Amino acid sequence: MGNVEGMSTETVPPTAAEDLPSTAPAATPQQDTDAEVEERSGYRRPAIDVPALTALLDGKYAEVRNLVRTNLAEYAGILTDAEEMTRDEFRERVKDVVVEMASTGQTGMGFPEEYGGGGDIGASVAAFETLAYGDLSVLVKVGVQFGLFGGAILQLGSKEHHDAYLADLITGKLMGCFAMTESGHGSNVQALGTVATYDVATQEFVVTTTREDARKDYIGNAAKHAEIAVVFAQLEVAGKSEGVHAFVVPIRDRDGGTLPGVRIEDDGLKMGLNGVDNGRIWFDGVRIPRTALLNRFADVTPSGVYESEIENPNRRFFTMLGTLVQGRVCVGGGGINAAKVAIAIAVKYALKRRQFEATSEDEEELLLDYGLHQRRLLPLLADTYALHFAQEVVAGQLHDVTSGIETSEHAKRELESRAAGTKALGTWHATRTIQECREACGGAGYLAENRFAALKADTDVFTTFEGDNHVLLQLVAKGLLTDYASDFEDLDQLGTVRFVTNLAVETVIEKTAVHKLLERVKDLLPGGDQWDQEAGLLDSDYQLAMLRFREEHMLSGVARRLKRGIDQKMNPGEVFSRVQDHVIAAARAHVERLVLEAFVAKVEALPDGENKIALRLLCDLHALGVIESDRAWFMEHGRLSVARSKAISREIGSLCRKVRPLADDLVDAFAVPPEMLRSPSLLG
Amino acid sequence: MGNVEGMSTETVPPTAAEDLPSTAPAATPQQDTDAEVEERSGYRRPAIDVPALTALLDGKYAEVRNLVRTNLAEYAGILTDAEEMTRDEFRERVKDVVVEMASTGQTGMGFPEEYGGGGDIGASVAAFETLAYGDLSVLVKVGVQFGLFGGAILQLGSKEHHDAYLADLITGKLMGCFAMTESGHGSNVQALGTVATYDVATQEFVVTTTREDARKDYIGNAAKHAEIAVVFAQLEVAGKSEGVHAFVVPIRDRDGGTLPGVRIEDDGLKMGLNGVDNGRIWFDGVRIPRTALLNRFADVTPSGVYESEIENPNRRFFTMLGTLVQGRVCVGGGGINAAKVAIAIAVKYALKRRQFEATSEDEEELLLDYGLHQRRLLPLLADTYALHFAQEVVAGQLHDVTSGIETSEHAKRELESRAAGTKALGTWHATRTIQECREACGGAGYLAENRFAALKADTDVFTTFEGDNHVLLQLVAKGLLTDYASDFEDLDQLGTVRFVTNLAVETVIEKTAVHKLLERVKDLLPGGDQWDQEAGLLDSDYQLAMLRFREEHMLSGVARRLKRGIDQKMNPGEVFSRVQDHVIAAARAHVERLVLEAFVAKVEALPDGENKIALRLLCDLHALGVIESDRAWFMEHGRLSVARSKAISREIGSLCRKVRPLADDLVDAFAVPPEMLRSPSLLG
Repeated sequence: MGNVEGMSTETVPPTAAEDLPSTAPAATPQQDTDAEVEERSGYRRPAIDVPALTALLDGKYAEVRNLVRTNLAEYAGILTDAEEMTRDEFRERVKDVVVEMASTGQTGMGFPEEYGGGGDIGASVAAFETLAYGDLSVLVKVGVQFGLFGGAILQLGSKEHHDAYLADLITGKLMGCFAMTESGHGSNVQALGTVATYDVATQEFVVTTTREDARKDYIGNAAKHAEIAVVFAQLEVAGKSEGVHAFVVPIRDRDGGTLPGVRIEDDGLKMGLNGVDNGRIWFDGVRIPRTALLNRFADVTPSGVYESEIENPNRRFFTMLGTLVQGRVCVGGGGINAAKVAIAIAVKYALKRRQFEATSEDEEELLLDYGLHQRRLLPLLADTYALHFAQEVVAGQLHDVTSGIETSEHAKRELESRAAGTKALGTWHATRTIQECREACGGAGYLAENRFAALKADTDVFTTFEGDNHVLLQLVAKGLLTDYASDFEDLDQLGTVRFVTNLAVETVIEKTAVHKLLERVKDLLPGGDQWDQEAGLLDSDYQLAMLRFREEHMLSGVARRLKRGIDQKMNPGEVFSRVQDHVIAAARAHVERLVLEAFVAKVEALPDGENKIALRLLCDLHALGVIESDRAWFMEHGRLSVARSKAISREIGSLCRKVRPLADDLVDAFAVPPEMLRSPSLLG
Repeated sequence: MGNVEGMSTETVPPTAAEDLPSTAPAATPQQDTDAEVEERSGYRRPAIDVPALTALLDGKYAEVRNLVRTNLAEYAGILTDAEEMTRDEFRERVKDVVVEMASTGQTGMGFPEEYGGGGDIGASVAAFETLAYGDLSVLVKVGVQFGLFGGAILQLGSKEHHDAYLADLITGKLMGCFAMTESGHGSNVQALGTVATYDVATQEFVVTTTREDARKDYIGNAAKHAEIAVVFAQLEVAGKSEGVHAFVVPIRDRDGGTLPGVRIEDDGLKMGLNGVDNGRIWFDGVRIPRTALLNRFADVTPSGVYESEIENPNRRFFTMLGTLVQGRVCVGGGGINAAKVAIAIAVKYALKRRQFEATSEDEEELLLDYGLHQRRLLPLLADTYALHFAQEVVAGQLHDVTSGIETSEHAKRELESRAAGTKALGTWHATRTIQECREACGGAGYLAENRFAALKADTDVFTTFEGDNHVLLQLVAKGLLTDYASDFEDLDQLGTVRFVTNLAVETVIEKTAVHKLLERVKDLLPGGDQWDQEAGLLDSDYQLAMLRFREEHMLSGVARRLKRGIDQKMNPGEVFSRVQDHVIAAARAHVERLVLEAFVAKVEALPDGENKIALRLLCDLHALGVIESDRAWFMEHGRLSVARSKAISREIGSLCRKVRPLADDLVDAFAVPPEMLRSPSLLG
């Protein structure tokens, strides 16, 4: 094989003597051809053991994932139902499928065994993730019923509530909804306008929608199926507001009729997920018994005394919001698995469809043999693997914290941050990957039968629900800046600015978790030009050092900028506004480092073999892709020379060519049931 | 107003002494506060004259655009029809609206007056673009009927065909389709598998689908409404293949029944545009008269002799494909105008919705007062203006070429290239903008009533139809590399590689159109550090010089890499595959330069005044955004220092803050009818 890049520059005319653009890696005289490099390095194409790779991806929950795969194939008709049924019919169909799947135990794995659950949070996350291979209305309906509604009863309620509701909600006999968001308040839950006032005379709470934009909105299961709502409202006891609490409020009778004082409106057609009945709810003086307060963390005595073991009201609030963590872990995993479906279809199509004569005049070229097509799809495939393994880590942490295996406050906070960050990157990855894959499948990708229509429309809101991605990254940054200080969760934006600026900047920097990691970084990236020759681009220590350096630098930069703004007597809100994109960038840098660490650790732990070689290629492709996409930053901060920046782009091209012959096996290893790939006019 | 960025770095601890990340512009000691800079430069907030700005945007076709706005408001119910009707009902509704709009003259402006048209191509493009404010099934149905079908009859047919069809198709009485694409061949039209064989005995053509993947596919109007298809097929005369030609083939009788030998299948549900009836067509020995050949450029005599004034078969083919140019101009404009709807909604929502306390403890902050939100939306607004003016240029060129005002071959080729490039950038811009705007509107953005669902689903295929964007950018690059040589259109990828490599590289570079522009570039970007201090970031000569330099450098790099690959005896297809991302990058750089030139020229031509000040801010924001997004490349090629790269990011932040108070007026100037903004739960 010749190499267009590996030639001398001596014949280049004077007007074009510079190196070639990095988007188009060029030659340096000392560069060898790929073939030479491969021969010298002993590189040869690995033969992937697909079942073994699937087993690695499935991890400890292979059995659970296979149960879900079987169920998905069993109910494959739901994909066409989504297209052919009316909205009402499809909502009923989705509900039925959810209830039938519940009977297999698939959806109740996270609940205590005494109520019919599986008693294993990790298994419940694995089941949910795998469900994302199929129709996503089913996925989201499961999330609403068992994750949000069921999770709130389980985690915010006490035994009394568990006894009353869990057994029936696990089977789907009792459907409920999670009524947190209001039209006027999504991310800022603390400012909700729904109020629950304790009436000591009747020992009841009176739930009221106090203004129009305080109506509950976008609530899944509300428009049609929920009998019960877990309602988040400002608790008022004896004229004092105690902050947001959760209450069990019946909203429908068994016949589906709306109860007195409750008004429900359908949110109507949505971009996607039309098998889920989202709606709006207004409460007009709805009375519920005192015991309807989900009282695990706070209670009101019959005589009207508010009691809680958590004294700080903000802390109490954020403890209750902890119920959202599992939802975030699940949504992130759902997004990543939806991306797998898209990339599997696009790769398989690119291995079937030919277009234009290129290397031969007799036959058109396979799409995946075009360099650009490789560049479009294969880094996304590598990122999908990386995020899969990062997701495995956060799901494991969730399991440990929720199951009481890990009990430290710090671990809980780190979990919240990691769940937020993985959710943000995983769902953005889904949006981007599905879009690129649709375009890479041309006009056929636009037909509903080929899956992208549903994947794109259904996953679109993943970047918003269970926490807007930008708000979640701010949460990540706040945790980093305060080193998950005991009160970090209470801090709103003003509070964060004040907190940070009350510390010496050095303290902030020393407190950052990443700071400890920097010793190795200094060895690997000593600055100047020296390191430039030393570390190999395919050395994962080098790749990690780059991401660690960036994270630490961005984070300390944020701290300094916040502090300086305050020193200059600026309004803290304005300081925050101006530093905000820096805050988001720092959080993203942090999460990208965690993702790479997860992938590297997974690869290193593997026994030597073909699969390890293949995954190492993918891991390198992922790592260099992350560095390349922010190479301007690295150059601006003296950690990447022009020559090395171009070398990275060249290496990515070379890695794509090496991954190309492995691509089919790599997507097969996801083990997406063929019925879920569907795509008759792409793959048929 | 204080400035968080303008402080000394003396107090910075040693571990963090570098400049701050560019994503978060930092201080340099000499930097003044915005307020000081603004005072010294005489900057003050301009007061936009919205009607005057609308008049500027509408240009010479204000009257036409207002007619369309009136029609859109008249038929505003179509937006809800799209949600509430069944697919069959909605298809009929869309057809009816198209026919009713036709009766206003809106859709026939590009046809000769003698057949009832308006005789003004430019007006027809303006009408089409404006129609993109409304339901996009209507837009696309109009495009299929009047642009593709009608355009083929007009441009490929002779008077006989005009007399037979134009009057009826202009009124919509005769519906037709444009049957070019096949399941197995989209971009590579030259390889179509449908064959039309001349039977001298009966003086008929026999049209046949020769293999399964040669069925016509994704054909708009085919599934339901077309009586007639313009079918692109390989013409065979006397045993010899003469290449692809277009034929008029009746496919349905007046009652809608499929004619003998024709089989039609519905493409079924699509991601969007479900008011358009796309379908598949198979032909089994369908006989059509000899006169059914659209014979403007080639004909077959009764006795079976093939005749054409264009000798080169490839040239002939590409001349016929010229009918696609108008479609590309229209789709690009449609995408840009759909993006206007999205950005108008997102900006207006961000000026209404508050979230989190930031600068005040009493009131939550408007979304658009957050730095990040400004950074997300305002550069997209600036890009939308830039693309609008670039679209105006290409639409003007189309008018001049099609109306015979401009007749040179070179102008035609440049038009083809510019139409391809503007279509690619305009439609990608639509995809990106609609996505960002949806996310910026949170969960409410997911509800169908708030427009993004339809905008996103309907525009998605714009990046694919009328030419896949990547393939179109390759066309642009080919034109640049060959300086629109007389035979450049014939060149497939192999041919292009050979063509380029047969020239001396210097010749290629000298031939590039951009090369002539480089003298000014050398003055402005002399290299080294000197220029770094000299040119102001807000100097449009500097901005243009940067884009011209990049374009020329990328283009000559492509030429060199192609040539070197051949010199090294690589397979030309493999050379092309490896250089392909570089080819695409060069083409994109070219089009971005054209877009900026169009915006700069428009602003410079304006009389001094408030609107000019406002547009200059937007133009700077656009220009620096383009440079920033490729700043790694400029650093890698010695045309941007680290300090200046960071200064650009800072300047963008500052420009966003200046554009922020103008944003409402800037989106109002698009004059999107309020009925088309809709969005009751965002703006109501």
